[in-house]
Amino acid sequence: MTTFNKVTAAHIAALREIAGVQYVLADEESMSRYAQDETEDLHYLPEVVVKPDTTEQVSRIMQLCNEALLPVTPRGGGTGLSGGALAQYGGVLISMERFNRIQLIDERNLQVITEPGVITEELQNAVKEKGLFYPPDPSSRGTCFIGGNIAENSGGPKAVKYGVVKDYVLNLEMVLPNGDIIWTGANVLKNATGYNLTQLVVGSEGTLGIVTKIVLRLIPLPKNDLLMLVPFRSAESACAAVSAIFRAGFTPSAMEFMERDALDWVTKYVQSNAVRIDDDIQAHLLIEVDGNYPEVLMQEMEGIAGVVEGFDIGEILFAEDSQQKDELWKLRRRVAEAVKANSIYKEEDTVVPRAELPVLLKGVKEIGNRYGFHSVCYGHAGDGNLHVNIIRGELTEEQWNGTLKEGIREIFELVKQLGGTISGEHGIGLVQKNYMDIIFDQTSMHLMKQIKQIFDPNNILNRGKIFDC
Amino acid sequence: MTTFNKVTAAHIAALREIAGVQYVLADEESMSRYAQDETEDLHYLPEVVVKPDTTEQVSRIMQLCNEALLPVTPRGGGTGLSGGALAQYGGVLISMERFNRIQLIDERNLQVITEPGVITEELQNAVKEKGLFYPPDPSSRGTCFIGGNIAENSGGPKAVKYGVVKDYVLNLEMVLPNGDIIWTGANVLKNATGYNLTQLVVGSEGTLGIVTKIVLRLIPLPKNDLLMLVPFRSAESACAAVSAIFRAGFTPSAMEFMERDALDWVTKYVQSNAVRIDDDIQAHLLIEVDGNYPEVLMQEMEGIAGVVEGFDIGEILFAEDSQQKDELWKLRRRVAEAVKANSIYKEEDTVVPRAELPVLLKGVKEIGNRYGFHSVCYGHAGDGNLHVNIIRGELTEEQWNGTLKEGIREIFELVKQLGGTISGEHGIGLVQKNYMDIIFDQTSMHLMKQIKQIFDPNNILNRGKIFDC
Repeated sequence: MTTFNKVTAAHIAALREIAGVQYVLADEESMSRYAQDETEDLHYLPEVVVKPDTTEQVSRIMQLCNEALLPVTPRGGGTGLSGGALAQYGGVLISMERFNRIQLIDERNLQVITEPGVITEELQNAVKEKGLFYPPDPSSRGTCFIGGNIAENSGGPKAVKYGVVKDYVLNLEMVLPNGDIIWTGANVLKNATGYNLTQLVVGSEGTLGIVTKIVLRLIPLPKNDLLMLVPFRSAESACAAVSAIFRAGFTPSAMEFMERDALDWVTKYVQSNAVRIDDDIQAHLLIEVDGNYPEVLMQEMEGIAGVVEGFDIGEILFAEDSQQKDELWKLRRRVAEAVKANSIYKEEDTVVPRAELPVLLKGVKEIGNRYGFHSVCYGHAGDGNLHVNIIRGELTEEQWNGTLKEGIREIFELVKQLGGTISGEHGIGLVQKNYMDIIFDQTSMHLMKQIKQIFDPNNILNRGKIFDC
Repeated sequence: MTTFNKVTAAHIAALREIAGVQYVLADEESMSRYAQDETEDLHYLPEVVVKPDTTEQVSRIMQLCNEALLPVTPRGGGTGLSGGALAQYGGVLISMERFNRIQLIDERNLQVITEPGVITEELQNAVKEKGLFYPPDPSSRGTCFIGGNIAENSGGPKAVKYGVVKDYVLNLEMVLPNGDIIWTGANVLKNATGYNLTQLVVGSEGTLGIVTKIVLRLIPLPKNDLLMLVPFRSAESACAAVSAIFRAGFTPSAMEFMERDALDWVTKYVQSNAVRIDDDIQAHLLIEVDGNYPEVLMQEMEGIAGVVEGFDIGEILFAEDSQQKDELWKLRRRVAEAVKANSIYKEEDTVVPRAELPVLLKGVKEIGNRYGFHSVCYGHAGDGNLHVNIIRGELTEEQWNGTLKEGIREIFELVKQLGGTISGEHGIGLVQKNYMDIIFDQTSMHLMKQIKQIFDPNNILNRGKIFDC
């Protein structure tokens, strides 16, 4: 393994020469703002933070670091949940925050060309003004960057109908670790021209290059939506209802699962009185349909209600207006925050074929009983994507950082057994890499490590994320 | 570059030992059936054809060939249009025709697990019986294999609404050139677990490994569709109408473009009287909408008709019943065949952002004028995917195999300039590899070649396809 060098005053001077004095931070106070993301309580201080503004600058910075063998960590909005943007080896942290321009909303072709530092929600709003829709919307959409979404192949509630980030990325401009600049594909909906470098980069967690420009496809904005909240007397039957809805031929635009605790905690956390939760309710599904024809949406909602009524439910809450819809969505989007405020926790991003959700949920609880941990589960049930929040609660230090690892391993082994995998949308980063052997055999892992080496022979870019090599 | 060895009697005996005597063909007559695909008039005879039946057998065959340095060409239905399944170096041709079992239609999870030698249309019909839909349907769907579709990342008419093959592949079992067997991913809709090996393999044209099992996602089958044929007095305005329809907020389930000659020739070829083409008509759009609500489809058809009426059209033909729909679709699907029957031709699979179609079409004709060739253009206009059929006609041998290359290069340079690429769904294979430099710079090409080398260090598998290395 290459040994990294430390960042020197000369390096900092060279970085200032490239990016401008005010965009290179080396004082501890400034840098400490770049030492964390949203992953547990991890903290890694870089040696220097640089904020380039152009592809050319990124290229020169990478050339410098590659020659000087300095570790480089690219960073978007800092909202990651797997530690992908943390400077584990110190070194140079490249913040993409100044790449915040939407370059072209191409209404003729239903495409947008954007820089990676644009906040996802701002991108969504900008295209919405033109009657266009960019669906992937992680819960952090108000602060995360579109570039980070590409690094992690993010999803969000709409993925169940509209797919995840990878389904919208057409082409990427990227700076390789040696400073070379490439485009990965073309601005087209269909492409059978060589290996799909674009899709190799999506989800690669900033380990193969630094994306500097993004071409996304857009779709026409659906004009209407309807939303309902369905309370279930058993969490497992809520999970079972998910698959039944799809088998009945419906494709909701969102299908979110929340265990009782999740909705309870967030309701208290945001002091909402939007929902009254009866004592016998164990879980909720938040179900949305969208489209252009209100009468069709009404029919679909009624059809879905008909399906869930077979599952021992409480009274369905139909959102009456956009205010009530916003309120329900706010509750769902802020669950993670509420859980975090309640206790230290570790979040596992399990995903299985959707009909296996009840088995997964039951297994998680059973494993929790054996290892003595409480979990709060919620997530994108329509995709089979269940976020398992393991609450620290009364666990001792030895349990929390010791034996719990075995419990998590058991959860992931169950996930694998059910045809699933250990991350649906958060990525592997730092915190899940020791579980990669559950999903991939040595041959596949070796292929990935060799791919990393092709792109980054000196292993300077985001080393130690996804795997060690 | 590794030098290949010739196939010996001992190799053939070993192959017979692995796959069974009757599944190893070495006589010229049998092998000649595997010497062509649908690409122009190319012809390459393998030294031996082997038809394995299990992943284990494929693994043992690959091990043998890898150790003996024998070239291997994997082959599906033999319907390819870029020469990907041709045994350019002779050697061992592995026909996947016995991998023809659909292993599981998982109605609970809307997934199917299939072997690669299943005919695409048979797969579609099998899932249709369960009320499920696998949309990608190349024109060759009645004879092509699903494995070949994955190798080429095929599209077809439905891609405009439903996406291409890559959008349905969840997981692949694959035998590497050294005989190792891997799974590329997991059976889930969302995946942020390491590099996307699945998407790296889709569209890799059988150069990275031999796919032996395929997990596809399915969607609920739309219950209804409507179809109309719109005649235009100018081919360019037909192309312009395509983009206008999307900008008006409609997403048809098919939007096919046919130049006058295409429809003329196929009408004669299949002796159909379904369509009467007035003298002043220069092109047609075949437009389909699908969904569950007939009244909505009717509204959408009317909306689309309203848009195209602004483009100097003739009388729209609305298909009245399923028989008329089938007839119109038959015409579209058999265009390539009709053109082939009419003349030797070279088919270019250009794709651009859809609003650039009129510029592309005009450019193709202008280039044709300069190089003295006639072209018949048709294709998946909704995706910006225009098949340019260059007709041999009166061209001399020197023009056809000489200067025409420069004309094709000019077409592809125009495509690149418009943001497009040189293959949308046919792949690069043998026939387009000399144009890859138009799309990818040396750095990107080098990355691809290095990826090939990781998977296939001895360069035995489908060497010479996509690029030389």
